[in-house]
Amino acid sequence: MPDTADLPEDLRNVILGVQERTGFVPNVFLALSHRPDELRAFLAYHDALMERDGGLTKADREMVVVATSANNDCQYCVVAHGAILRIRARDPMVADQVAINYHKADITDRQKAMLDFALTVADDSRSISDGDFEVLRSHGFDDDDIWDIAGISSLFGMSNRMANFLSMRPNDEFYAMGR
Amino acid sequence: MPDTADLPEDLRNVILGVQERTGFVPNVFLALSHRPDELRAFLAYHDALMERDGGLTKADREMVVVATSANNDCQYCVVAHGAILRIRARDPMVADQVAINYHKADITDRQKAMLDFALTVADDSRSISDGDFEVLRSHGFDDDDIWDIAGISSLFGMSNRMANFLSMRPNDEFYAMGR
Amino acid sequence: MPDTADLPEDLRNVILGVQERTGFVPNVFLALSHRPDELRAFLAYHDALMERDGGLTKADREMVVVATSANNDCQYCVVAHGAILRIRARDPMVADQVAINYHKADITDRQKAMLDFALTVADDSRSISDGDFEVLRSHGFDDDDIWDIAGISSLFGMSNRMANFLSMRPNDEFYAMGR
Amino acid sequence: MPDTADLPEDLRNVILGVQERTGFVPNVFLALSHRPDELRAFLAYHDALMERDGGLTKADREMVVVATSANNDCQYCVVAHGAILRIRARDPMVADQVAINYHKADITDRQKAMLDFALTVADDSRSISDGDFEVLRSHGFDDDDIWDIAGISSLFGMSNRMANFLSMRPNDEFYAMGR
Amino acid sequence: MPDTADLPEDLRNVILGVQERTGFVPNVFLALSHRPDELRAFLAYHDALMERDGGLTKADREMVVVATSANNDCQYCVVAHGAILRIRARDPMVADQVAINYHKADITDRQKAMLDFALTVADDSRSISDGDFEVLRSHGFDDDDIWDIAGISSLFGMSNRMANFLSMRPNDEFYAMGR
Amino acid sequence: MPDTADLPEDLRNVILGVQERTGFVPNVFLALSHRPDELRAFLAYHDALMERDGGLTKADREMVVVATSANNDCQYCVVAHGAILRIRARDPMVADQVAINYHKADITDRQKAMLDFALTVADDSRSISDGDFEVLRSHGFDDDDIWDIAGISSLFGMSNRMANFLSMRPNDEFYAMGR
Repeated sequence: MPDTADLPEDLRNVILGVQERTGFVPNVFLALSHRPDELRAFLAYHDALMERDGGLTKADREMVVVATSANNDCQYCVVAHGAILRIRARDPMVADQVAINYHKADITDRQKAMLDFALTVADDSRSISDGDFEVLRSHGFDDDDIWDIAGISSLFGMSNRMANFLSMRPNDEFYAMGR
Repeated sequence: MPDTADLPEDLRNVILGVQERTGFVPNVFLALSHRPDELRAFLAYHDALMERDGGLTKADREMVVVATSANNDCQYCVVAHGAILRIRARDPMVADQVAINYHKADITDRQKAMLDFALTVADDSRSISDGDFEVLRSHGFDDDDIWDIAGISSLFGMSNRMANFLSMRPNDEFYAMGR
Repeated sequence: MPDTADLPEDLRNVILGVQERTGFVPNVFLALSHRPDELRAFLAYHDALMERDGGLTKADREMVVVATSANNDCQYCVVAHGAILRIRARDPMVADQVAINYHKADITDRQKAMLDFALTVADDSRSISDGDFEVLRSHGFDDDDIWDIAGISSLFGMSNRMANFLSMRPNDEFYAMGR
Repeated sequence: MPDTADLPEDLRNVILGVQERTGFVPNVFLALSHRPDELRAFLAYHDALMERDGGLTKADREMVVVATSANNDCQYCVVAHGAILRIRARDPMVADQVAINYHKADITDRQKAMLDFALTVADDSRSISDGDFEVLRSHGFDDDDIWDIAGISSLFGMSNRMANFLSMRPNDEFYAMGR
Repeated sequence: MPDTADLPEDLRNVILGVQERTGFVPNVFLALSHRPDELRAFLAYHDALMERDGGLTKADREMVVVATSANNDCQYCVVAHGAILRIRARDPMVADQVAINYHKADITDRQKAMLDFALTVADDSRSISDGDFEVLRSHGFDDDDIWDIAGISSLFGMSNRMANFLSMRPNDEFYAMGR
Repeated sequence: MPDTADLPEDLRNVILGVQERTGFVPNVFLALSHRPDELRAFLAYHDALMERDGGLTKADREMVVVATSANNDCQYCVVAHGAILRIRARDPMVADQVAINYHKADITDRQKAMLDFALTVADDSRSISDGDFEVLRSHGFDDDDIWDIAGISSLFGMSNRMANFLSMRPNDEFYAMGR
């Protein structure tokens, strides 16, 4: 992995900021910093979707990440975002439940509908139709919420594949965070 | 769930013994005790495979359980046996890694071959052939070890399905054990 | 295969009893007797599910076995239990029909619902939900019947995998029985 | 089903010929005779592939039909051609074995290679490459034999789908023939 | 590929007729003419289904061919019949849309129902049931139309597999026809 | 779709530049401009991967896009990038061939290895291992080339899903470009 000292200043500052808040540098920053332009684009896309206001809480967004990443068999993303989900949801068990089988998780029907759609995006986007949108609207999701679910599932579909390609390991700190 | 007071004496004694050693009664005992004969048979089969001596360590056996149960999307078995694997392997991270994607886990090549075969049993037993056995033997597994891998994958293939059928929940205690 | 003379007395007696009733020793007894404890547990589990009274007839139970075993590509179980199904159902054709494609078999809608659920247990237990139970109840199955269907599909999911692992052959006698 | 009396004379003669040799009229003739031109074309294609001389015996050809039809879940074709296979191979057990799981059937390695290719044609023709042909040639199949295997698997891929569409039932006579 | 001069006279005349109308000899005629009897049978079957009168227009029939052939990954059939579909439908874009993802194509709901059924025939004929027929009838298809859809999907299921087996290339002329 | 007049100036300038070079505004710019931050991030990621120098030509990069997008059933991406591939490769037929079945396309073995890996990233990233990299290196791809293939497949995995979610239509101009 590259040393942060060799990174462009803007990325180094981002990473130092994360380190200050979290206490460590998540490996994804180092693994992707081999290509600074791609890392910048990924971070911009990530923040645009994950830090928006709207009908999805931050815990909801992380739940979409965990369910999608588990579906895509991504060790880094399930472990790291599982930790964030535990913290955001203030629930030490929900992340493991969603990762293993969200159908049996202790979550609301609205959240199950959200995850059903996230996995349709992940596994069968060819068939997305008005019927899918009607189900989501019946749970109170508006058009921007639906875009958020589709966007997060699509974005992490990308990073899950890159993390698997790079055999990216989660930092040890993530495993126990929020338990 | 049935009350342990209503169980036949032999099962009640088994359950009290587990409770004494572990500090709580794993939900699987209560969920399956609705059918005492089936619970007895399951426990007998379980102990015959999981407590045998042989070329597989107890951690290896639990690793087969976790990989198979994750493949079969079983919340109870991944969480409960993930805890046991962490304890047996004295490794707080291996269970999550094996559950999410054992190909990327920090385990030995011998263990990867063991899990490859366990998942062939789970997903494609129709095609098992001498070629599979040769790979296993090249990693030092003998005929009884191979039977153990096949048996554990098959047995948990059964209990994974029953746990999903019953929407069995892991006890809260399991999530943090061994981390 | 082991000789019955070398078996523990209880298993030898079981096998001699089967031989007396049937005229031959089904190969499954010999193949699994390499591990007497596992064979005892399997037989106990089998009898607990297959010889129960309840809303499923013995022919229904065998039909679940045949459909599940065909789904799991198990030569031994389809041929041996196909014979038993022909006898129990007093129908020389139903076993082949159920094994090839139960959707097109000459069976009742209630039996099709039973087999739909058995195969959901076999192939997609992660998604079992109240909707599945409602369909079954609408055909008159009660909670214990539903447990029986799930249990038989799960148990034979296990023995199908073991029979494939062992390349277990059906006795020649089974092929023509009940035709 | 149409009455044979209403059929064009050429088809009526074909059917009467089959009836004379076999003792009954296989249902496929009646089911497809709703469209005489299609039935004629199917029979012509069938005979061109199934009655050719070459490196495949008649039993081999029927074995390809049974394995392909089982893969495609076609009740009519597995039962009817299973009967013909038993007769051609003078073996009462081979048809059930091939239908359930040809990997575990009592057939030669050459026949397994033949069926591997037939199922590649059925399930993954997009990827057929020189590597497939080399395997077949190493078992002594020449180019015309390979065409025959591909052609039979393709032709029955068509008739399996039509038989499923029409819910075509095998005549009762087929079930026990050749056992 | 064989020279047309070596073909039986009837097939040579068919081919010369096509060449006269189209300006070139489509490769499928030459590729299959290695087996004249099979080519004759294929042409007879093709014409019986593709040149029938009935509720399906010629463009509808070609649309079934293109959707089925794309599903079966057949280069020859998608390119050649895509050209014919563009001409029959007088639409330069519909063939590419149907080939890539007919769910998102600019076609009618009736045509989508037709293609849904064609792909059920192609991928899951085992489960065809009255429910499928009711949907088709609600769009105005009668029994002969439904047979046509099933027949075309089945017939091209055969020729798609043969074209993949033969690595059949479309003539260069097809790519730009009708655009 | 939003009017370009309402877009932030930087995006309006990008779009006007494309329009100047191409003669029209590709629909993807308008469809995604509903979320300017996401569009900026996507364009930055796209350019970082598609306009890099390295061992992959621009035609190679577009070929990865077309094969991945066809695998993911994305109408917009196959039609639009198919046009670009035809132009970059100066070949009117390669895009259709790659979209339908790249195994049978007129491309080099090196390009087939490139597409094999792109689709492994798309469909089975969990199992990517050193074996995949060795195959690629044997065709002369270096580590940065391999990253490019993985990155392009992952990025378009994201945009394919968004395009399907939005039912994005390709501009009519793309269908005939470069033929």
